[in-house]
Amino acid sequence: MNKTKQMKTLDGNTAAAHIAYALSDVAAIYPITPSSNMAEICDEWAAYGRKNIFGQTLKISTMQSEAGAAGAVHGSLVSGALSTTFTASQGLLLMIPNMYKISGELLPAVFHVSARTLSTHALSIFGDHSDVMAARQTGFALLASASVQEAMDLALVAHLSAINSRVPFLHFFDGFRTSHEMQKIEIIDYKDIARLVDRKAVTAFRSRALNPECPHQRGTAQNPDTHFQNREAANPYYLALPGIVSEAMAQVSTLTGRCYHLFDYVGAADAENVIICMGSASDTVEGTVKFLCSRGEKVGMIKVRLYRPFSGEHFLKVLPASCRRIAVLDRTKEPGSPGEPLYQDVCTTLMEAGQAKQVVGGRYGISSKEFTPSMVRAVFDNLDAPEPKNHFTVGINDDITNSSLKIKEKIHVAPPGTYCCKFYGLGSDGTVSANQNSITIIGDNTDLYAQAYFVYDSKKSGGITVSHLRFGPKPIRLPFQVWRPSFVACHNPSYVTRYALLEGIREGGTFLLNSPWNLEEMELRLPAEMKRIIARKKIKFYNIDAVKIASEVTLGGRINVIMQAAFFKTTKVIDPALAFAEMEKMIEKSYGKKGPKIVEKNIAAMNKAIAALEEIRYPDSWAEAENGALFIPEEAPQYVRDVVYPMLALQGDQLPVSAFQPDGVVPLGTTRYEKRGTAVKVPIWIPDLCIQCNQCAFVCPHAAIRPYLSREDDLKMAPDGFTTVKANGKKTDGKLYYRIQVSPLDCTGCGNCVDTCLAKEPALEM
Amino acid sequence: MNKTKQMKTLDGNTAAAHIAYALSDVAAIYPITPSSNMAEICDEWAAYGRKNIFGQTLKISTMQSEAGAAGAVHGSLVSGALSTTFTASQGLLLMIPNMYKISGELLPAVFHVSARTLSTHALSIFGDHSDVMAARQTGFALLASASVQEAMDLALVAHLSAINSRVPFLHFFDGFRTSHEMQKIEIIDYKDIARLVDRKAVTAFRSRALNPECPHQRGTAQNPDTHFQNREAANPYYLALPGIVSEAMAQVSTLTGRCYHLFDYVGAADAENVIICMGSASDTVEGTVKFLCSRGEKVGMIKVRLYRPFSGEHFLKVLPASCRRIAVLDRTKEPGSPGEPLYQDVCTTLMEAGQAKQVVGGRYGISSKEFTPSMVRAVFDNLDAPEPKNHFTVGINDDITNSSLKIKEKIHVAPPGTYCCKFYGLGSDGTVSANQNSITIIGDNTDLYAQAYFVYDSKKSGGITVSHLRFGPKPIRLPFQVWRPSFVACHNPSYVTRYALLEGIREGGTFLLNSPWNLEEMELRLPAEMKRIIARKKIKFYNIDAVKIASEVTLGGRINVIMQAAFFKTTKVIDPALAFAEMEKMIEKSYGKKGPKIVEKNIAAMNKAIAALEEIRYPDSWAEAENGALFIPEEAPQYVRDVVYPMLALQGDQLPVSAFQPDGVVPLGTTRYEKRGTAVKVPIWIPDLCIQCNQCAFVCPHAAIRPYLSREDDLKMAPDGFTTVKANGKKTDGKLYYRIQVSPLDCTGCGNCVDTCLAKEPALEM
Repeated sequence: MNKTKQMKTLDGNTAAAHIAYALSDVAAIYPITPSSNMAEICDEWAAYGRKNIFGQTLKISTMQSEAGAAGAVHGSLVSGALSTTFTASQGLLLMIPNMYKISGELLPAVFHVSARTLSTHALSIFGDHSDVMAARQTGFALLASASVQEAMDLALVAHLSAINSRVPFLHFFDGFRTSHEMQKIEIIDYKDIARLVDRKAVTAFRSRALNPECPHQRGTAQNPDTHFQNREAANPYYLALPGIVSEAMAQVSTLTGRCYHLFDYVGAADAENVIICMGSASDTVEGTVKFLCSRGEKVGMIKVRLYRPFSGEHFLKVLPASCRRIAVLDRTKEPGSPGEPLYQDVCTTLMEAGQAKQVVGGRYGISSKEFTPSMVRAVFDNLDAPEPKNHFTVGINDDITNSSLKIKEKIHVAPPGTYCCKFYGLGSDGTVSANQNSITIIGDNTDLYAQAYFVYDSKKSGGITVSHLRFGPKPIRLPFQVWRPSFVACHNPSYVTRYALLEGIREGGTFLLNSPWNLEEMELRLPAEMKRIIARKKIKFYNIDAVKIASEVTLGGRINVIMQAAFFKTTKVIDPALAFAEMEKMIEKSYGKKGPKIVEKNIAAMNKAIAALEEIRYPDSWAEAENGALFIPEEAPQYVRDVVYPMLALQGDQLPVSAFQPDGVVPLGTTRYEKRGTAVKVPIWIPDLCIQCNQCAFVCPHAAIRPYLSREDDLKMAPDGFTTVKANGKKTDGKLYYRIQVSPLDCTGCGNCVDTCLAKEPALEM
Repeated sequence: MNKTKQMKTLDGNTAAAHIAYALSDVAAIYPITPSSNMAEICDEWAAYGRKNIFGQTLKISTMQSEAGAAGAVHGSLVSGALSTTFTASQGLLLMIPNMYKISGELLPAVFHVSARTLSTHALSIFGDHSDVMAARQTGFALLASASVQEAMDLALVAHLSAINSRVPFLHFFDGFRTSHEMQKIEIIDYKDIARLVDRKAVTAFRSRALNPECPHQRGTAQNPDTHFQNREAANPYYLALPGIVSEAMAQVSTLTGRCYHLFDYVGAADAENVIICMGSASDTVEGTVKFLCSRGEKVGMIKVRLYRPFSGEHFLKVLPASCRRIAVLDRTKEPGSPGEPLYQDVCTTLMEAGQAKQVVGGRYGISSKEFTPSMVRAVFDNLDAPEPKNHFTVGINDDITNSSLKIKEKIHVAPPGTYCCKFYGLGSDGTVSANQNSITIIGDNTDLYAQAYFVYDSKKSGGITVSHLRFGPKPIRLPFQVWRPSFVACHNPSYVTRYALLEGIREGGTFLLNSPWNLEEMELRLPAEMKRIIARKKIKFYNIDAVKIASEVTLGGRINVIMQAAFFKTTKVIDPALAFAEMEKMIEKSYGKKGPKIVEKNIAAMNKAIAALEEIRYPDSWAEAENGALFIPEEAPQYVRDVVYPMLALQGDQLPVSAFQPDGVVPLGTTRYEKRGTAVKVPIWIPDLCIQCNQCAFVCPHAAIRPYLSREDDLKMAPDGFTTVKANGKKTDGKLYYRIQVSPLDCTGCGNCVDTCLAKEPALEM
């Protein structure tokens, strides 16, 4: 295909939704993290009247649960509409009963799943393959995408193959890791998609629909005399499937220039040690394998794309004859099984082929646990051990059953010229949105490839967010966090003593801090360790008082535009002048709906930021700094000290297995040791203005502001300055005293209390 | 244990419920075929105040769905109550989300599952392992019982092991085949159970409950930093499980004298060919293996009892070193998998052990398809083939993908002295209940072992039922249908031309027919084939006009007691005098609630039957009979001729795979070719008495009686004798004519129409 590539910066969910929308008549949905965006995006597109390749607007219906969504998809397929849905985790579990029906009736559904952990000892909204593995026996084909680009390319393969084969598809990619990672990728045009679709197959599908003009019956009840025979009647459809998917992959490969097969081998032609894996780990392993091969190691890897049907024939074709040892990586855990599913499939295939290789299986990346090149190295090291561990874990320290592999060597595989950044923000402060903007600006205005991944905790608003951004001249296939950043931004001054912000920062890198401090104050406010790193690594250190600027332009706590401008000015990843011009456009786009005033405020903030950014000329003595701010955790029970505090310091990954109760039980009353104190401003109560309506307490999302009534006796022991007023209301009998009390460490500074105050002049001010 | 055995005749559901009741504080239920009886029995016991081993009455709650039942079990466990539930098929699917939670929190639930087919191209209420296999990854332990006795013994192992290990158990046995098979088994006394329970473990469980006196938190949300580690923290519980289950099996073995291990090997010590299977097939394979070994063949089999955790170590210990070829039988189908689950587990285990044996896998018994010794023979034959088929099917004719094995030899493995009977009845005519009574009488009053299995179609009332009864001096472990009966009873005269009733009957066997025919009429009414078999095999042929007797004693269509008495009188399996005395007791027990009149009627019917039974002295000429009644199916479309008619003739098992649409689609309008004509009496409308209330049509469960209005013009073409009356009602304007029309071939003769008639004297009579 000789044509201009259309590049866009978007996330995995959007990439998959782009294809799902193109090729579906109906989507029945029930949103669940991390798949919700797919449904939401399709809903938005449908609301704007976007047309699919059949010239129709997608009909999208929100059901009462995922079970209902799957049922509606089933019904919709039976009535001749190409149908899709989007789900994950518990949502997928609720779809399983209908999945058996949909596959049993050979209906070409496509489910797009951003694979997520199932709840066991604890809930997790993060990613692994436990959900899709719980559906592997339903008769659906399972197709795995490893990256944002693949989430688009293989979504297309899934839809084309479903139409051509009649077998339903579950197309999946790693929840958060791929679903929420932003990448600059090539967009497949709907016109090109339209050309690839087998119209005869679509017509044949529609002609099989239940309709009064060709009535028939389906979903009957069968007895032992006939059910088994009928169950075997669909065998030819499954036997044909590997061929059909191969063909669709060939079509998509021709169209895009990106080459896909059921299994893809990467590595040395004479590899002895081979890793087999699926999903986003593929890119990590591929990068590491190439790196190790460049060192002369005989290693290789197989990416599994079509997981069901598992074509042993195709698998054996790509496995090099030289291979002696295999490690199969599963991103799920099935307690009691002789091995995790992909491992068992590989064992079965090799057993049938009579190939007596050494095969071990291991678990990694459960619930979005990081999976890095260094861990890949550990997996290869294990294969080289005299007695390789089987059923190992990698990425954790299992000090109970000693399943875990030791990491001996740290490996860095980013392509040369890749610029890596980390941003520490506060949930809802706009950091993540600003970074999404930034990589879109960079992606759309340069030839650079861009990647962004956002680490949230599940506290939502007020929790910490860490944005991991990479830019570079080559495609960035690094589905793990930045650990050697060239740029670090800290959007909240309280973080300097809480987190190891500068861990891994490169020599000569840049550190951008939002704080109200001058150099003198920094001597006191920054921890010694941070000062030493800054000085020893010759870090370019910038400060900006973003809160002050936001306040000056009356933007409240929203410092995102300010920090974004500072980022562009300090890093120069892109010509700052261009960046600021693009930022203005983005501001218009993002805030235009809210009126010209908000747009103006944001543009003013941007300009102030450019002017206010200050490079800190720190003294050389910082290299040997011994004094500085300390983070002093409160005296606390052992569990809080041993488990909670490391987690709060973003060191939870280091906690060993023995730190946890096997049944997920935890002590009560631990939140009192987790006062985050993230509010830059907290409300002050003005008793004289207060009308005692209590609305401030009612709207506070963190229960951080509360009204109290006291008796005169109670107040005798009140500390100085503990102001109260006579309480209103007949029943108080004139004997009770009223006070609004703020809990400053629990307050997030959102200002809802001030905004909602019913008094003539607000009785609260920030 | 030196004590008198308590033997009872009961089914698999009752056997499992006996243990579940003993060891549970709470059962949260939502009944589903074929598990419903477990819940119903427990409910009944609880209503009567039966005590569990803790001296409590089981608290049983019916929820809104199986999802709710599993949720309630989860909650109940968390609050410290030993909890159980009973389910199957789609019901189990709805429990999966909670199962992950229950196992993740190490809560010792026990689910008893009568394993049933999942709905795919068609629904089926019958048995296979597709449901339990859909739950194998949930972290539950899976324990399989192969027979009614095991359903009791291993249910106990499941409860004991759950308490001792903290891991929840799914105890399963084959739906219908085991759940509804009646067997004379040894009952485990609650006092003995109480002695086996580890009270300390129970106390420890209760002390972990969520309660205000030792508050804690469970089911938290975890993030990528800690979820993986915590997920590995339960490893020791799963590693300990095989040992704990082995110990519980040893305890139960000591108590009962019946020996159980995680895997049990049966067969030649030097076996070369070994079958591995699970569930009721185990007894079939065991019987066949013993038979083949007695012929000198080097064959063996392994019964899988603890399926999860699958202990490769224990498996390899029982596999004879001489084994060269293995066939793994799976009672489920997972399209797209490299092999069904048990097959994959065996492959994985052998791969890990470096044992290069030839392993093939096959599917059998899907949806209660018969699995017989002859099929076991075919599986062994396949292993001996130069290139054994892998991923085979057995028990069907797969003429599409040629997966099926050919059956070359028919094998009979019943222990000597086993007396086999078959009864053809009409659903709701009481045949099944009478047979249940009969085997209880025989079981309780003799040293004979007894087995009864009832083949229903899913038409419920009015469908055909075939009861398969066996009696004998040795335990009867034949979990397949009787195919060489010594006794055949036909409870409905219309069956003689419809079914091959005497197929396989033994030389000198007995045939008991319910018909109003004398010998002369039989010449015309019986098909030639039947007459030839009767004469050539020197069958003792008895007739009884049960309908006449039932009518004489005003019992309506209930001929069960009459046929039962005739059975006892003709077979003499038990002293007839004793049998009749016991029948009287049973009649009192069964009908006592309905008043003395019904009891008297039934006893009268019994006595009349004893007197009226007539041996038919058929002529020798029957041996060469050429003439007789024919079953002439109506002219019908091809699908009806090729598929529906064989199914109606109970020949559906012979239909090949190619007879079916792969997506389960069937043509419409086929019921018109399935007029069963099973009513012995049909209602006649008496126009003069009719008040035109239409209640008869309203209550008819088969839409076989309908009111019609006609205009005078319409009636011009009416046939002779087409009586109508002036229609009532203002709106008829005096111009319409009314008629009640019965469809005799659709009528089942239930008499509901007559019973409900609102006229002073019934306007309908049978």
